[in-house]
Amino acid sequence: MQSEIDFVVLNARIVSMLPTANGYQVSDPCAIRFRDGKIHDVDPSNLLPSGIASFDCNNQLVTPGFIDCHTHLVFAGNRANEYEMRLQGVPYQTIAQNGGGILSTVKATRQASQEELTQLALPRLDGLIRTGVTSVEIKSGYGLTLNDEIKMLKAAKALESHRHIRVSTTLLAAHALPPEYAGQADSYIDFVCQEVIPAVAEQQLATSVDVFCESIGFNLQQSEQVFLAAKQHGLAVKGHTEQLSNLGGSALTARYQGLSADHIEYLDEAGVIALSNSNTVATLLPGAFYFLRETQSPPIELLRHHQVPMAIASDFNPGTSPFADLTMMMNMGCTLFGLTPEESLRGVTCHAAQALGYGASRGQIRVGFDADLAIWDVEHPAELSYQQGMPRLTARFIKGELGYV
Amino acid sequence: MQSEIDFVVLNARIVSMLPTANGYQVSDPCAIRFRDGKIHDVDPSNLLPSGIASFDCNNQLVTPGFIDCHTHLVFAGNRANEYEMRLQGVPYQTIAQNGGGILSTVKATRQASQEELTQLALPRLDGLIRTGVTSVEIKSGYGLTLNDEIKMLKAAKALESHRHIRVSTTLLAAHALPPEYAGQADSYIDFVCQEVIPAVAEQQLATSVDVFCESIGFNLQQSEQVFLAAKQHGLAVKGHTEQLSNLGGSALTARYQGLSADHIEYLDEAGVIALSNSNTVATLLPGAFYFLRETQSPPIELLRHHQVPMAIASDFNPGTSPFADLTMMMNMGCTLFGLTPEESLRGVTCHAAQALGYGASRGQIRVGFDADLAIWDVEHPAELSYQQGMPRLTARFIKGELGYV
Ligand SMILES: [Zn+2]
Ligand SMILES: [Zn+2]
Repeated sequence: MQSEIDFVVLNARIVSMLPTANGYQVSDPCAIRFRDGKIHDVDPSNLLPSGIASFDCNNQLVTPGFIDCHTHLVFAGNRANEYEMRLQGVPYQTIAQNGGGILSTVKATRQASQEELTQLALPRLDGLIRTGVTSVEIKSGYGLTLNDEIKMLKAAKALESHRHIRVSTTLLAAHALPPEYAGQADSYIDFVCQEVIPAVAEQQLATSVDVFCESIGFNLQQSEQVFLAAKQHGLAVKGHTEQLSNLGGSALTARYQGLSADHIEYLDEAGVIALSNSNTVATLLPGAFYFLRETQSPPIELLRHHQVPMAIASDFNPGTSPFADLTMMMNMGCTLFGLTPEESLRGVTCHAAQALGYGASRGQIRVGFDADLAIWDVEHPAELSYQQGMPRLTARFIKGELGYV
Repeated sequence: MQSEIDFVVLNARIVSMLPTANGYQVSDPCAIRFRDGKIHDVDPSNLLPSGIASFDCNNQLVTPGFIDCHTHLVFAGNRANEYEMRLQGVPYQTIAQNGGGILSTVKATRQASQEELTQLALPRLDGLIRTGVTSVEIKSGYGLTLNDEIKMLKAAKALESHRHIRVSTTLLAAHALPPEYAGQADSYIDFVCQEVIPAVAEQQLATSVDVFCESIGFNLQQSEQVFLAAKQHGLAVKGHTEQLSNLGGSALTARYQGLSADHIEYLDEAGVIALSNSNTVATLLPGAFYFLRETQSPPIELLRHHQVPMAIASDFNPGTSPFADLTMMMNMGCTLFGLTPEESLRGVTCHAAQALGYGASRGQIRVGFDADLAIWDVEHPAELSYQQGMPRLTARFIKGELGYV
């Protein structure tokens, strides 16, 4: 059957991330053989059939390509000055009155062209790529008009033609109330459900729909309305839930078979059980927790007890998590939330894949899965969570195609 | 006088870090002119004299080259497994009994050759270089014998022949008690003072001497003995002080005109005043604070009130701060300690230079200072503290010589 193989990755010390206990074990050097962009098999004899193209890992560590399953990578504007004002002691109220906060990002994003948005996102994407990312989810949510949300989603998808990367897009029109709907949240949600979701589904610009379900976002009823509309149009759902308070958004997300409930610092056991019953991933966003100096940690022990899969993502965004570095997020997951390095690695591979709806094709080194790999100059997978800043990514493969950093 | 100039950096938007208020202002594009590796002048007319070599910044931001004034970059061994065991809930006692902790690093470092130590440090150094570092301080302290401390210092200095970098070396023989001196701390300090310091001074292997003054390190009297020996041999002093308790090590360091007192989470006002009176820099190490999940912050308000210069450093080391990323440390200084972005930038430029004894020649873009620069693809200097992970360093200059990343 060797004639079927079209590429071989040699001398690979594999951490497969299979859902079994040995998925975190490091294999002896072996060969990963590709066919048509998928993993055809893993060959422990580590041989190169003649006439087949190959890549030599030199016994470096090979993991599934990393997946950042929650980002807001596309936006215009610069909120460094807002960060600086905050640290100089200017009250948030004053910053907001001077046009700061999320609405400053909305304003700048509306003014930018689709091409400008793509260009602005490239260095952020390059940071993620440097830490092993092969798949990235990108949300809209700074346009908040039909045209501007569509522009954001197209700008996100266009990143694939500039970099060796796979982009999943999520419609987050229910991110914040746009100024022109001030005081009319219900009307805005009607607009999102009746105009934005149908258009985005029709044009196939996103595969899922997200809602910021929070006292300062949208309430449970509004969130459910969005989920209903999404489901009617064949889109998956996910939620920004239980970040600052316990509204029940995660349980709602679970009720709609959501892909993931994200943030979840204030999730209680009933909510954890709801996630567990619907196989919804709990996505932890330690960058925002760190940046906002939060003190309430997500319920890690309960999530473990009820066997809810945990993902870790960068949540890259200009207001609360300006970190284009997925391995630093793994470190924060361990250091701030007490995850083990195995949990943090599952959080950016198999569980992150599940959070994007690709649990059966990405995030594991497994026969039949997509040949998305990251090659690392480290001894042990725990190092990926532990040390930071050192250049240690050697190469990435996406659908069997090699890309350097 | 143009014939004196030998290089021109054009279209530079300069953040000079002069000790005046406008040292943090961004200049209009101008030219920085070098002569013999030093800054000859800054030319607001931004002209290129004919026949002079040049570099075009394209209106990017130019800061002094960054200075990481406290690292333990040279060591052997890998403590990722210890990190993993800790997160798996293994008690520290058990880890230490199984050969973990600092003594595992000592054992591995003693077994490594000087050349191996240099090679192991290179990727760590590369991480720092990627975040704009042109000068790095490196301490010994994992050898704890005469030969092994000397080997570490030579390995550190040898990094200059592998990378475009300036290395300052510090003798930290009083880092931990080596196992062969268990229960005999006074005898070990005698050995350090009578044999190690004289030999290192004689061979000019370090410019300063450091002590870990702490309940789990060396006491005040032992620390003073080390400082006395250092001074007798013409070496500067600095201390790891007030990290876990308030022993008075910072005031002791100040009494010996120390370059810096480092960590200082538990420093009180009397200690702050002592630093202020001796012009000793307060070096903040937020990476260790973060990694150890400490809750006691350094006394930032008191340091500001008494006008003590604050530096920020990576403290890169395998046990408590595995972060080869100086701009992330700036972010932690702001996010965790409440520094302003200006303070964090001063902390890795002018104040870090002072902490190494180079306050009059590095860390500012100033006539007569060394031409050590970092060129950044950012709009405003606050971005260096704010966003992380994005590749944004365009180039560095050291003594007028260009180096890319
Ligand atoms: Zn988010
Ligand atoms: Zn240290």
